[in-house]
Amino acid sequence: MSLLAVGSIAFDSIRTPYGDVQEILGGSATFFSITASWFTSVSVVAVVGEDFGEEQFKVFRQRSIDTRGVEQVPGRTFRWKGEYAGDMNQAHTLDTQLNVFESFVPKIPTAYLDSKFLFLGNIVPVLQLNVRQALPNLTASALDTMNYWIQGMPDELAKVLATVEILLINEGEARMLSRVNNLKKAAAIIQKLGPKILVIKRGEHGATLFSGNSIFTVPAFPLDEVFDPTGAGDTFAGGFMGHIARSGDFSDANLRRAAVYGSVMGSFAVEEFGVGRLLRLTPGEIESRYREIKSLTHFDA
Amino acid sequence: MSLLAVGSIAFDSIRTPYGDVQEILGGSATFFSITASWFTSVSVVAVVGEDFGEEQFKVFRQRSIDTRGVEQVPGRTFRWKGEYAGDMNQAHTLDTQLNVFESFVPKIPTAYLDSKFLFLGNIVPVLQLNVRQALPNLTASALDTMNYWIQGMPDELAKVLATVEILLINEGEARMLSRVNNLKKAAAIIQKLGPKILVIKRGEHGATLFSGNSIFTVPAFPLDEVFDPTGAGDTFAGGFMGHIARSGDFSDANLRRAAVYGSVMGSFAVEEFGVGRLLRLTPGEIESRYREIKSLTHFDA
Repeated sequence: MSLLAVGSIAFDSIRTPYGDVQEILGGSATFFSITASWFTSVSVVAVVGEDFGEEQFKVFRQRSIDTRGVEQVPGRTFRWKGEYAGDMNQAHTLDTQLNVFESFVPKIPTAYLDSKFLFLGNIVPVLQLNVRQALPNLTASALDTMNYWIQGMPDELAKVLATVEILLINEGEARMLSRVNNLKKAAAIIQKLGPKILVIKRGEHGATLFSGNSIFTVPAFPLDEVFDPTGAGDTFAGGFMGHIARSGDFSDANLRRAAVYGSVMGSFAVEEFGVGRLLRLTPGEIESRYREIKSLTHFDA
Repeated sequence: MSLLAVGSIAFDSIRTPYGDVQEILGGSATFFSITASWFTSVSVVAVVGEDFGEEQFKVFRQRSIDTRGVEQVPGRTFRWKGEYAGDMNQAHTLDTQLNVFESFVPKIPTAYLDSKFLFLGNIVPVLQLNVRQALPNLTASALDTMNYWIQGMPDELAKVLATVEILLINEGEARMLSRVNNLKKAAAIIQKLGPKILVIKRGEHGATLFSGNSIFTVPAFPLDEVFDPTGAGDTFAGGFMGHIARSGDFSDANLRRAAVYGSVMGSFAVEEFGVGRLLRLTPGEIESRYREIKSLTHFDA
């Protein structure tokens, strides 16, 4: 079923121990939508500048992603520059130029109003809430957020949290949002704020899914090289929401499958800079890695 | 089958966000042997001072642990003082008094010479090697070590590593020992140093087992309270080696079971200060938590 992603489209400049790249296609809506396109039909609401050209739009078209909601306005596209070192668990931001993203107000094309699933990438909570309220026919919506909004706009964040079924955040953000260190308690507190389905992302340690009273852990797939962690979280979200949207099944067993697809897709994302690996996938590769995670975690009862 | 543990016996003083305790029974041999005693018969080689009394020996006897190898010498028992804060993943040592442990030379009682399984707790590598060489009839031996020896005595550590089948170390130590950040590569490098079976402990994120070419991840059991992480690593080792010793089965499927028992026992250890929870266990509780970890990780293929 149709899945709408709202978030950023950016040009990323990234340095890792494996090399560096300049101004490659990135952003939360980009990683999410390309990933989810392997599971279901996806449309995007985002903003880009005049420097965003045919070459970039072609990447989305190649994955049959509906970009009618990608607004092109005067100015330059959002730019992010970051670096990873050591165990590569943490990005160090070197430069952020919001450019056209600074005054981004998501506009939902009429053709998108019947979307059944929504992913609200990490943007200002007030804008997330506006989008959520503009779509009354949703089956489920998912939210990502970050420390900046948790600390800076707690009331606005609380309002949008109360309207979504699913929250995907990382471990540190879960602790910050709940104000407790213990993740099981943090999850219970966050579930009371709105989202009954909560995914706590733990980077190279995988993710934990809390749905109702059930807890499920999925590891990250062990890779020989983690080339570039940029976008891994949005890619996880793309696999998770992509599988939920294509199945429409909210049973605990199916949410677990969705979390495994999240981990599968995240593992592909980090194998190369940018979205290159995510574009070159095959359904067979996705299913094969799903089975590898099965054998990675299997033991006899 | 008989399992011999060589390591420290200590009095620990610990402060956590949940409270603090003074001079309670601790040490690697203590946590390991009490844990392993739930699986198989265990004997201990360690050293204590004159301040170690009937009350402490009784704790070992209560679990039918053979303490004929616990040498009592003039002086005070090893003391450690530490603190945990925040996410409690890291102990901050406030004070270490080696006392009688400083001149510890393990002496293996004749009655222990037919031991089939050996756990070499974290002590000077030269002493670990001496013990290993004094026991020619072992089926398998396991080693723990730490950053201090990896950096300070690499040659001595390499010698003992070459003689053991199993190594249990934490994530940071695996990176330090292999000199690579990627854990899959680190494991391959470490396996070439000797131990074909490697457990990389990841604290609250669980552990990863590398046996030959197989990789298995087990999560930590999610608890409402992590009261005191002291001894969790040695407790994991006690469950892992305890199950291997009782089964004598080195198949990949059984090593996976052993890793789950390691995680199970580690989760009990941290529920209270010291060894209290490990003494009050029942076999039913152990099996029940084993099944809970099964349901925590299960998803449909």
